[in-house]
Amino acid sequence: MSDYTPPLHDIRFLLDHVTPIGDLAKLEPFAEIDADSVYGVVEEFGRLMSEVWAPTNAVGDHEGSEVEGDTVRTATGFKEAYKAYADAGWGAVPFEEAYGGGGFPWLVGIVQQEMLNSANMALAMAPLLTQGAIDAILHHGSEEQKEKYLLKMVSGEWTGSMNLTEPDAGSDVGALRTKAIKQDDGSYRISGQKIFITFGEHSFTDNIIHLVLARTPDAPTGTKGISCFIVPKFLVNDDGSLGDRNDVHIVSVEHKMGIKGSPTCVLAYGDDSDGAVGYLIGEENAGMRYMFTMMNNARLGVGVEGLGLAERAYQHALAYARERKQGFAPGAARGEKSFIVEHPDVRRNLLTMKSYTEAMRVLSYKVAEQIDVARHGADESTRTAAQEMVDLLIPLAKSFCTDVAETVTSIGIQVHGGMGFIEETGAAQFYRDTKITQIYEGTNGIQAMDLVGRKLPMRGGGVYQDQLGRMKATVAELAEAGPELAVIHRELSSALDALEDATGWILSEGMADPVQALSAATPYQRLFATTVAGWLMGVQALVARRLVDAGAPDADVAAVKLVTSRFFAEHLLPQVHGLVAPVKAGKADLFALDAAQL
Amino acid sequence: MSDYTPPLHDIRFLLDHVTPIGDLAKLEPFAEIDADSVYGVVEEFGRLMSEVWAPTNAVGDHEGSEVEGDTVRTATGFKEAYKAYADAGWGAVPFEEAYGGGGFPWLVGIVQQEMLNSANMALAMAPLLTQGAIDAILHHGSEEQKEKYLLKMVSGEWTGSMNLTEPDAGSDVGALRTKAIKQDDGSYRISGQKIFITFGEHSFTDNIIHLVLARTPDAPTGTKGISCFIVPKFLVNDDGSLGDRNDVHIVSVEHKMGIKGSPTCVLAYGDDSDGAVGYLIGEENAGMRYMFTMMNNARLGVGVEGLGLAERAYQHALAYARERKQGFAPGAARGEKSFIVEHPDVRRNLLTMKSYTEAMRVLSYKVAEQIDVARHGADESTRTAAQEMVDLLIPLAKSFCTDVAETVTSIGIQVHGGMGFIEETGAAQFYRDTKITQIYEGTNGIQAMDLVGRKLPMRGGGVYQDQLGRMKATVAELAEAGPELAVIHRELSSALDALEDATGWILSEGMADPVQALSAATPYQRLFATTVAGWLMGVQALVARRLVDAGAPDADVAAVKLVTSRFFAEHLLPQVHGLVAPVKAGKADLFALDAAQL
Repeated sequence: MSDYTPPLHDIRFLLDHVTPIGDLAKLEPFAEIDADSVYGVVEEFGRLMSEVWAPTNAVGDHEGSEVEGDTVRTATGFKEAYKAYADAGWGAVPFEEAYGGGGFPWLVGIVQQEMLNSANMALAMAPLLTQGAIDAILHHGSEEQKEKYLLKMVSGEWTGSMNLTEPDAGSDVGALRTKAIKQDDGSYRISGQKIFITFGEHSFTDNIIHLVLARTPDAPTGTKGISCFIVPKFLVNDDGSLGDRNDVHIVSVEHKMGIKGSPTCVLAYGDDSDGAVGYLIGEENAGMRYMFTMMNNARLGVGVEGLGLAERAYQHALAYARERKQGFAPGAARGEKSFIVEHPDVRRNLLTMKSYTEAMRVLSYKVAEQIDVARHGADESTRTAAQEMVDLLIPLAKSFCTDVAETVTSIGIQVHGGMGFIEETGAAQFYRDTKITQIYEGTNGIQAMDLVGRKLPMRGGGVYQDQLGRMKATVAELAEAGPELAVIHRELSSALDALEDATGWILSEGMADPVQALSAATPYQRLFATTVAGWLMGVQALVARRLVDAGAPDADVAAVKLVTSRFFAEHLLPQVHGLVAPVKAGKADLFALDAAQL
Repeated sequence: MSDYTPPLHDIRFLLDHVTPIGDLAKLEPFAEIDADSVYGVVEEFGRLMSEVWAPTNAVGDHEGSEVEGDTVRTATGFKEAYKAYADAGWGAVPFEEAYGGGGFPWLVGIVQQEMLNSANMALAMAPLLTQGAIDAILHHGSEEQKEKYLLKMVSGEWTGSMNLTEPDAGSDVGALRTKAIKQDDGSYRISGQKIFITFGEHSFTDNIIHLVLARTPDAPTGTKGISCFIVPKFLVNDDGSLGDRNDVHIVSVEHKMGIKGSPTCVLAYGDDSDGAVGYLIGEENAGMRYMFTMMNNARLGVGVEGLGLAERAYQHALAYARERKQGFAPGAARGEKSFIVEHPDVRRNLLTMKSYTEAMRVLSYKVAEQIDVARHGADESTRTAAQEMVDLLIPLAKSFCTDVAETVTSIGIQVHGGMGFIEETGAAQFYRDTKITQIYEGTNGIQAMDLVGRKLPMRGGGVYQDQLGRMKATVAELAEAGPELAVIHRELSSALDALEDATGWILSEGMADPVQALSAATPYQRLFATTVAGWLMGVQALVARRLVDAGAPDADVAAVKLVTSRFFAEHLLPQVHGLVAPVKAGKADLFALDAAQL
């Protein structure tokens, strides 16, 4: 068993000072929001997560889910926890008021996501995948579709699912073969099989709205011939009541290493008929473009899964380190056993966990803040600049938060020693749950290809230059910030040199030969992301320095941030220096052997 | 399901050229051994592992083990696989002929261990823990004990178990409380509870010889008051037949994240009587010293678990990458899907796995070779030098091989994409199994404390200097070895600079203040170990260069080694440059916050 306490101090520190909620509140659609209302939401939501959701986490891991007739049995307490969330309207918080939303910034939605994932990542996937489906209908659905489906999805009365993957179409979604045949009434008949469908079936709600990618008979091959359909589990009558059961059925659920509480479904469309009834969203063959709209949100969301798991793993390890006695730490009274939190190497482990988790949080929140500005900034140039920043940082946030979450949850086990390997301890679950975040929503290798292939070349490298400029400005500020931040100044400055060196190589060698760029993509991504994280920890340190000096009310929280920021700079950021050589090594070694020699 | 093919080419390359078995065969006790007999053993043993053991691996993970009456039910096929191993006398290979052993070098035993762990790590623990118990009795038992217990343990007729840990005595073994009361007949009565006892109970054999650490009534506190006892499950009569059932019983088996096929037992001693009957090994209060004798072998053995898992995970991922088609790799024929092995980032993943696995292998085999020299070298100075090298390298080998195995098995999942997270695929098991290796037999944090606290100061730093000298000699050789090895020369030379820089800090700051050394221990250990691995990959490259140039019969194997060695130098070795700053940061940040502020 493991308790969860929402990290309200840390959240508030960022929302007060680093990604200020007060600034977002000045944007037009948020005119009725103020910081107090946001903190009210965060606190009350945190209470639900801590009291109702968190206790279901280990249960879900233990019980998993399984097919039962035409539906899926989920773990004890899951349905009730979902209901408590939906009934209170929590799913509506970050959506437009026009469709029943709470009208809060996306940043507030990301704070919620962090807590959802800390409390129970497997269960969190039900509302979070629904948010993905909402996103697609909101941006590309017709008014009638919004009226019919969106309101009940925003309210949490129905959930949504995302149906992209097929056995031979994973990373290469363009290879999908599910068919959609247009009918005289304008609807389509969908047939095929989809795999890896999260919460594709369950009994939480009386309807499920599946978003399905499929191909019309004369569609072009590849990603240019994909269309997107709404396929409700139960058809919806014009008066909003439920009609016939649609021909989409659960085939099986997967046995997974983690997030066992989340049913990962194989769904069959049209097996018992000439197809499940589906309704086209937008235009034919534009499905992939619509998916791209949601991609930034979805990828940030996966990064935040890493954040949520890391936070919970840290709390869990810290609690154990504070209560477990073993051996004698330096300075312990003679003959008195020490709590392991006093051992230097355990300290290192805990500070690594804490510092990484803070870095994940500030990076995720920064991207979320920019998503809000990109949507609602006062003028177009502000919006464009924010959108560019989001586009550049998304692969970094997704890959960094999920790769680092693996490290943090692994250390979490390590702090427990042998007990960490015993399932009842709870530390192992966080580690097992984390692994999928590096894989889905585009593996971290795919993120790296996106970074070097699409993001770095944006505006002829101008978007990268803007980011570099922001980071250099922080270095300049750090130079003036006194001796306690000198080490952050030194390491961040040195990391920027490494980044410029590596980027220079990518922009010359890599642009001349795309195979060079693709070969270097993964170490480059890690180098860039670690530097950006180091930059934001530097920004956080500058804020903290000012608060401590001013004796601000939250100076005690800020004092801790000074330490974690310095720790990041000295202990974690220097990793970038091991990544320049791998970038510049390029493709030569990778293709020096043929596949048979490997 | 996952097949396993013993990597005979790689093993032979090392045994022919890098840790030459021919040189060991010149040592007196190995006079009757030659390379051909070793390769005969390796090949035939590999066949058993591949054909009989490997297919039981997933079964063990799936079925686990559970208490059934007074014994433990193990997974289907385990008993038969163990019998096939024992009946063929494989457990005897690396032991002295005087006690029924095969008289082969320990290096050959380590080659066996690699294959055992690749085939089925959970099952491998039965014979390998037995080897630990053999080691203790061989070195410290009386002739009568050797006669009575050792012969049947060497033959595999009985297994052994190691009983150290108690609920409040894990890393701090000196805190153990199990009691041993001496009887008039010279035997002892043992009472207490032991946890984490691998194969503490099973029905493979008709007896189990438990080695138990316990404390006599007037023993000093801490590690100086620990004695070591033989506690057989069934008492052994003087004629060798089995007598009464001893009062040691299974209480429960743990639910673990991995190695589920291996029963991790809680054992109760003396619950139903005035104690289980035990026989003192050697002298009272010397138990901890005896344990130290075995520690090098045991720790190397755990490193080799990492190696074995990494090799299997690599084979498994490679097979998938060669048969899975997805997307279009650079240079693919128009419209033709590529095997994912042709994608640059998948290549990077596979070469990282392969190169790391080779580094683990050469490091493990080098230490094993030196164990043989330390025992049987022609003169005392040779033996002493080898023993010093073993002592220095053991924490490096244990921590490096197990930390890197986590990385390799994680990448193994990643290569499979979403399928990697599905248990039936098999990749997840290697990852779950690996995690324990970083923890037991001294966590990797404990290894780091051993390195900076005991090993680095050996002979006033002289042992370290000898190692540095060996590595510098290789750098000098690399400088003359032509352009293809220039990058290895450059990176190894640069890594040695980093090591010298960090070691200088440890030897000055760390020796002046032990808390500094303890605070820096983990990054220092990783830095040192990665450099040593880079050195041995450099040694391997020099050998490979010569073989390729000479057109040797195994020039094709050597040509591959040139690539993997270069890959290690360019892509993995540079990590050391991110570790100098963390070492030199020392204790300041670690103790800047008190436990309540974390």
